[in-house]
Amino acid sequence: MVKSYFGASYREVEIGEIVTLGRDAPLTLECGVPISNFPLAYQTYGTLNAKRNNAILVCHALTGDQYVTGIHPVTGKPGWWDRMIGPGKPIDTNRFFVICSNVIGSCMGSFGPKEIDPATGKAWGLNFPFITVSDMVRVQALLVDYLGIEKLFAVIGGSMGGMQVLEWATRFPERLFAAAPIATATRQSAQNIAFHEIGRQAIMADPDWCDGDYLAQRKYPHKGLAVARMAAHVTYVSQSMLQEKFGRNLQDREEYTYGFDADFSVESYLRHQGVSFVERFDPNSYLYLTRAASYFDLSQGGRARLTDVFAGTKVRFCVVSFSSDWLYASVESRNLVRALNAVAANVSFTEINTDKGHDSFLLDVPEFDAVMTGFLHGSAAMYGVD
Amino acid sequence: MVKSYFGASYREVEIGEIVTLGRDAPLTLECGVPISNFPLAYQTYGTLNAKRNNAILVCHALTGDQYVTGIHPVTGKPGWWDRMIGPGKPIDTNRFFVICSNVIGSCMGSFGPKEIDPATGKAWGLNFPFITVSDMVRVQALLVDYLGIEKLFAVIGGSMGGMQVLEWATRFPERLFAAAPIATATRQSAQNIAFHEIGRQAIMADPDWCDGDYLAQRKYPHKGLAVARMAAHVTYVSQSMLQEKFGRNLQDREEYTYGFDADFSVESYLRHQGVSFVERFDPNSYLYLTRAASYFDLSQGGRARLTDVFAGTKVRFCVVSFSSDWLYASVESRNLVRALNAVAANVSFTEINTDKGHDSFLLDVPEFDAVMTGFLHGSAAMYGVD
Repeated sequence: MVKSYFGASYREVEIGEIVTLGRDAPLTLECGVPISNFPLAYQTYGTLNAKRNNAILVCHALTGDQYVTGIHPVTGKPGWWDRMIGPGKPIDTNRFFVICSNVIGSCMGSFGPKEIDPATGKAWGLNFPFITVSDMVRVQALLVDYLGIEKLFAVIGGSMGGMQVLEWATRFPERLFAAAPIATATRQSAQNIAFHEIGRQAIMADPDWCDGDYLAQRKYPHKGLAVARMAAHVTYVSQSMLQEKFGRNLQDREEYTYGFDADFSVESYLRHQGVSFVERFDPNSYLYLTRAASYFDLSQGGRARLTDVFAGTKVRFCVVSFSSDWLYASVESRNLVRALNAVAANVSFTEINTDKGHDSFLLDVPEFDAVMTGFLHGSAAMYGVD
Repeated sequence: MVKSYFGASYREVEIGEIVTLGRDAPLTLECGVPISNFPLAYQTYGTLNAKRNNAILVCHALTGDQYVTGIHPVTGKPGWWDRMIGPGKPIDTNRFFVICSNVIGSCMGSFGPKEIDPATGKAWGLNFPFITVSDMVRVQALLVDYLGIEKLFAVIGGSMGGMQVLEWATRFPERLFAAAPIATATRQSAQNIAFHEIGRQAIMADPDWCDGDYLAQRKYPHKGLAVARMAAHVTYVSQSMLQEKFGRNLQDREEYTYGFDADFSVESYLRHQGVSFVERFDPNSYLYLTRAASYFDLSQGGRARLTDVFAGTKVRFCVVSFSSDWLYASVESRNLVRALNAVAANVSFTEINTDKGHDSFLLDVPEFDAVMTGFLHGSAAMYGVD
């Protein structure tokens, strides 16, 4: 039983595997703070083969975690990529050994702002150091070391998970054979920086956030976090999906009530997204992780050219975007592909036609399954995975 | 001096013209509540001609008001359509008599939730009755009566102002010659209902909102209203405009600070939008007006067909949309135009190419000026305006 709280109701839950990293030497974060003896929570699925060449690292998005499949210990629901990962599924655990860790800064057992700072015996809160996508990836590399894997067969992830994939491919190009950055970008756009700022302001506007000290004060910024999630959720779906699914349907009523209740189904849906989120996610983690995403920029503020960043890469790339994704629009993937083409990298690009928006990579999109299945089995044959 | 507060600093300011309407007979709002002896604040510009046929009613958007030009008494800045209205400008006050009233439910002197309920001597707050776009327009018609104008030459407005234009054209088709609905839709979309719900939830999450009773308690939900405005503002501009104007520029710094300050210029810009808004707008008005916009649906939940709604109309329509507007996208205007074409209405449609997003109708877009100038002078000649 991990002694930590999970969600607004302060439940304690059993977390699977946790490894302590940074034992031998501290890891210096990009912000300059060295960290050592910190926990990283992870899960594995399938079996590492004798050649140790069938490992796939899956990187989760902003509010995901290590529970890609199976039953999630906090929500009681299937993991976030249950439809993609498992025996006979596109990421086939009969063939591949799948690793997914909870990124640092997050809240499912890894080093994050709700964990206890040994120096004070209290939750880190805003004393937690700022982390970046690069830091997340360097910690994942320590985990891969710990698991005794020299080179990953593939690194796969969508959204902020896709940023981690790109960071892997550029920081540790010799440690992976294939990379699938999905619905992502080489840098966070101005509009997405703006959306994340709104979310953070909503949380910090809630007096129950207590300047980040809500755990010590036994409060919880329910409302602020719910508003942040609602604002984010609209960006995860498409205009046409909302119109087709909800339109102007009323919620359990025939007429307008002339009030501020959720008259419309889409309002009720959105409120539900907010309320259920506060039961599983830590508000300070939301602040830190959105900050990390906003800081992400492979071109380092224009100091590096993408063609230099990817020059000479031997990684095989499978870039995927979704036509109705307006958060990480296809143009972002095309920019990535253009840079990869300019260095003669091995890259395929598929823009999948769907009206499901950014969340398409999490949803039932058969063409996406087919792309992933084909890429993984084709690459595995080339790499010599049995 | 109007005895009312304006904005978070509770300033009292001098409001121009205010007329008391509903003196002879009450007006029954769509929600069923009758109202009488209620104030409507308005401004006029230019001179009504002898034929009384040169009047243009301008309808403002969600947070606009009657100060289309001149100096705004609260902000000290030029009115919201200063670039469009005035001598020699597209809506030429040398030729036209321009009327703009503050919609009911708003907060610049008209009947709204911050005004005093005579029955209690306190601000209405959440006891204010729910209003609709149709109610706003029926009140405007009373103002037009009061001004002694039988038929308006034109009704013009963008966004929620455009909804009012459509309501005028369908409810009082004999009382206007021309109509210019700009950057609007025949009904609020699911996505826009969702965005407004986020704004309301942000305000209502702020404990200083005091269940709508902040005026009596001498509080003010600064933070909630600012978050609501930030979330709305992102929808007013385009992705490409944000990218070109701000990109990933840092605000007065060379490096990331690894903190939650506004490292990025776009964050600073957005915060400024929030902070300045609370100095001029009433939080409860924001709740009521977003509710009214969400309720807007010319098809009455599918009970009416648009072709029936517009059947036989003699009004001359000038429909305008902007290519980068994703809040009221061009497809919404095309749907309107299709219905107008299907009843052989007199309609022109211009989609203007610009990267300025929804706010294009308020910004420097010369092609838009040219469209308005042409439409108004052409129609005026036909209508016999001197």
